[in-house]
Amino acid sequence: MRRTSFAHWPCSVARTMDLLGDWWTPLVLREAFYGIRQFDAFQASLGIARNTLADRLRRLVDEGLLEKEPYQTEPVRYHYTLTEKGRDFFSVLLAMSRWGDRWLADEAGPPVAHYHDVCGQESHAEVVCAACGEPMTAENTHPRMGPGYPPHLAERPEVRERFSS
Amino acid sequence: MRRTSFAHWPCSVARTMDLLGDWWTPLVLREAFYGIRQFDAFQASLGIARNTLADRLRRLVDEGLLEKEPYQTEPVRYHYTLTEKGRDFFSVLLAMSRWGDRWLADEAGPPVAHYHDVCGQESHAEVVCAACGEPMTAENTHPRMGPGYPPHLAERPEVRERFSS
Repeated sequence: MRRTSFAHWPCSVARTMDLLGDWWTPLVLREAFYGIRQFDAFQASLGIARNTLADRLRRLVDEGLLEKEPYQTEPVRYHYTLTEKGRDFFSVLLAMSRWGDRWLADEAGPPVAHYHDVCGQESHAEVVCAACGEPMTAENTHPRMGPGYPPHLAERPEVRERFSS
Repeated sequence: MRRTSFAHWPCSVARTMDLLGDWWTPLVLREAFYGIRQFDAFQASLGIARNTLADRLRRLVDEGLLEKEPYQTEPVRYHYTLTEKGRDFFSVLLAMSRWGDRWLADEAGPPVAHYHDVCGQESHAEVVCAACGEPMTAENTHPRMGPGYPPHLAERPEVRERFSS
């Protein structure tokens, strides 16, 4: 059964999740960031069923996160490489990784560290305000109706309530 | 059929995704950040099946992201409120939201803006290095084996290759 579609909700979290489809997709992207480019390499690394992998790769190509390019003929074989849209998803994986490192790691510590070329340190991600650089937290950040909020929903009482803080 | 479990992979992205279980879970959390606390309010807002919602809330309570507290007796009714672990997940939703705003919004613009109390601006999230404050991107960040990487996997050639950059 096709699950509920979130693609048209006025929420970028819901739209992002709709595009991803399921949890394999971020892991396929993670592998692409690790430098994996070939179907068989994704398959070996993730232990994912071939038909599931084919479906997730097709989706990522259709949605413009990956590009599929032939690198060999007879037989034709393809590389999957990240587009700019795909590469930008790194920030979401970093934020997930930080949360998991903080809350799900065992006593030994995080399984993977992130070396930042800019400062030469093993570090982790922090989610800050693009305007002032200070952390954005649930306590200091409030949702406002954005320019793309659907006008026909904007006057509903429950929607007004939602954005009243 | 139970899907593949990612919980024990040496990867905080995989562990986070395993905990969430499916895409409803971040949306349930999103609603909690909007101030929703009661079962019926989650249900009305998300249009989610009651048994699915009950399952996701139970999981979030079991995993320590939500607390379930009685607020009424006869009949007993409960509030679901975010714990510190749950509140910290806001950063992941902000990163997703930013990516979706950038890549999935239509011409009208992002559906929701984020007002940052600290600077008094409608802004968006940026993912930066906790050590130096500069953006962490796929281009300037490289994975290293962390302290919690399983020793029995660390010597495998494909693992060494993965962390060789």
